[in-house]
Amino acid sequence: MAVIFTTEQSDDIDGYAAMAERMLELARTQPGFLGVESVREGAQGVTVSYWRDMDSMRAWGAHPEHREAQHLGRERWYRSWRLRIVEVKAERHST
Amino acid sequence: MAVIFTTEQSDDIDGYAAMAERMLELARTQPGFLGVESVREGAQGVTVSYWRDMDSMRAWGAHPEHREAQHLGRERWYRSWRLRIVEVKAERHST
Repeated sequence: MAVIFTTEQSDDIDGYAAMAERMLELARTQPGFLGVESVREGAQGVTVSYWRDMDSMRAWGAHPEHREAQHLGRERWYRSWRLRIVEVKAERHST
Repeated sequence: MAVIFTTEQSDDIDGYAAMAERMLELARTQPGFLGVESVREGAQGVTVSYWRDMDSMRAWGAHPEHREAQHLGRERWYRSWRLRIVEVKAERHST
């Protein structure tokens, strides 16, 4: 499973960078965490996190510290955001 | 359906920007195309394209001009890349 989280930042990004870094750190310690790719270009960001199963993905979504970050994101840091829950069907990569 | 395409650029990016822009333009004209999010931060890029179904996604993958771009990407522009075919199960977004 994976979560594709795309965001457009607002002008008020006080505290955002530290929180974003903290969330990446925290996510990496969660059960079922498989990996994360996070890229920001100006106001636009895409973060994809990969999870072993739906349960581990949901547990991360409900983590208290993550919930607080979600709240701050919605209220302050993001002009708009979109979150997609996806199931990985196939994968190819360079050798 | 969606394709998550993550890349790490090589040092040889001659012609890359023009081709990347052309591919975004071309993708937008394909049957079944639903949207694209493409973000690059330094060498790291994430592009997610969304498709109505597996057929339209595959047709785009097999488009002759796109195939040529894929070849150039593998041979020249990317140090490494990873492509994931995913199925969108749920979506939430800001109001």
